[in-house]
Amino acid sequence: MKVISGPASQELGRKISESLKVEVAPVVFKKFPDGESYIRLDADLKEEEVVIVQTTSPPQDTNLVQLLLMIDAAKDLGAERVVAVVPYLAYSRQDKRFLSGEAVSIETIIKLLEASGTDEFLTVNTHEEDVLKKFRVPAENLSAMTLLAEHFKKRGLTEAFSLAPDRGASELAKEAAEILGGGYGWLRKERDRLTGEISVEEKRLDVRNRDVVIFDDIISTGGTVAAAVEILKRQGAKKVYAACAHPLLIGEAQERIMQSGADGIVGTDCVPSSVSAVSVAPLIADALAKRGF
Amino acid sequence: MKVISGPASQELGRKISESLKVEVAPVVFKKFPDGESYIRLDADLKEEEVVIVQTTSPPQDTNLVQLLLMIDAAKDLGAERVVAVVPYLAYSRQDKRFLSGEAVSIETIIKLLEASGTDEFLTVNTHEEDVLKKFRVPAENLSAMTLLAEHFKKRGLTEAFSLAPDRGASELAKEAAEILGGGYGWLRKERDRLTGEISVEEKRLDVRNRDVVIFDDIISTGGTVAAAVEILKRQGAKKVYAACAHPLLIGEAQERIMQSGADGIVGTDCVPSSVSAVSVAPLIADALAKRGF
Repeated sequence: MKVISGPASQELGRKISESLKVEVAPVVFKKFPDGESYIRLDADLKEEEVVIVQTTSPPQDTNLVQLLLMIDAAKDLGAERVVAVVPYLAYSRQDKRFLSGEAVSIETIIKLLEASGTDEFLTVNTHEEDVLKKFRVPAENLSAMTLLAEHFKKRGLTEAFSLAPDRGASELAKEAAEILGGGYGWLRKERDRLTGEISVEEKRLDVRNRDVVIFDDIISTGGTVAAAVEILKRQGAKKVYAACAHPLLIGEAQERIMQSGADGIVGTDCVPSSVSAVSVAPLIADALAKRGF
Repeated sequence: MKVISGPASQELGRKISESLKVEVAPVVFKKFPDGESYIRLDADLKEEEVVIVQTTSPPQDTNLVQLLLMIDAAKDLGAERVVAVVPYLAYSRQDKRFLSGEAVSIETIIKLLEASGTDEFLTVNTHEEDVLKKFRVPAENLSAMTLLAEHFKKRGLTEAFSLAPDRGASELAKEAAEILGGGYGWLRKERDRLTGEISVEEKRLDVRNRDVVIFDDIISTGGTVAAAVEILKRQGAKKVYAACAHPLLIGEAQERIMQSGADGIVGTDCVPSSVSAVSVAPLIADALAKRGF
């Protein structure tokens, strides 16, 4: 068995291989002057079980194409079974036809992953777990919320309230609350499908003089989290932290969240970033071990 | 029948639809703040024959993903037959395993095009025509060399010598020579597979006091063409022009070629650029008409 750390997840791939105590198969990669990716799998993969770790955070399309090139090459080089580990799955938010004629992008991406030769698929906190049903090969969604909650617990946060910024993320907050022990709740968010504008409705929460951690799958531009922090601070919360599996943190997201009054942001290495303090390597290694690796 | 002009080939798609006198199906596209592409095909495609025009010049991966999203969406919306017109086909130069373990990228790309639902495929001057044999659906390679040669002929260039910068492009020069009438030849180029460095061997050519046009499929960084221009000038050529189907013109390519002594660069709208003076719309419209459009 071999682990391939794709260009976008070099560090995480290495950690997963260490957890599993298996060899890392070196990848030679570069970009040609015109922007095309070059991939070379410098290992004997014949009849091997191969785990390919490559996230598809920005630049999503380039990371996705590199992933597809690696999967197809591994199969072409004789790999018997290829497990694609894609910690952050791009395009997962375009999972329905919200307006007529829209591309349901995630369904296309799933087709491409299968066409390239993926035998099994693993991801972490994908936006809507149901989209994985579109895979014909085994596909599993792991959750990093317990790891994130443990991170706060280890740092002395007890009885903190776990908040989901919208109803869709309430399961995430519930999961975290099992570790933090201070109960959980959620806000109501609305998104205008045409303008993309987000509004978060103020709702009475049991947070006065309490610490709160906001749990979400993705922090993108930070608008939702910043709105939630402001509501919490208005209602008298003490420390407020933002936690997520996927810290995309587009543009000024980090500044925006901190300026809203947050006391910190913590993400995982599903998306390498300056706030990726929690590694999902043990989570993924466990899931792979359960699958016989 | 409907033509969809993809985000990367808006102008060319419009010209093709005008040539064919068929309707353009509007595409709504945008990029989300995180860099993901959004595609909406704003037309009734049910039981339609649909031509999707989208080049995959830089940014290749984004243009490719948009293309795949459009094809899959068109099929999902009920299109009966989808012809993918990809004037410049990215990754076509990685068509062999030059070193062990390399991804044969173009084979992966072809798999993805088929998986997304392409029923027929058209491209222009792809690097190695043989790669199209990897398609299981009908795939055709058109050549823009006649159109390029006619461009020079119309501007008064007669009996010009047609030169290919390497043996691989000699067929292109031969094709152009049928219009320009001044014979053709080729130089010998070597590429170091590890460093990527190119050297062009000087060879005696019948160009003294004659105009010369260099014909190639792609001009990327311009190194090959610049070397050819210098050889031609040393051998006493008069005017020297560079012509290609795909003016990628990466970085300082244009300056590099002009500084080598060239008198002009002409490309086609397979790749929109400041030198894309020749449109391949009539070529593509003809090929589509022959296929019953």
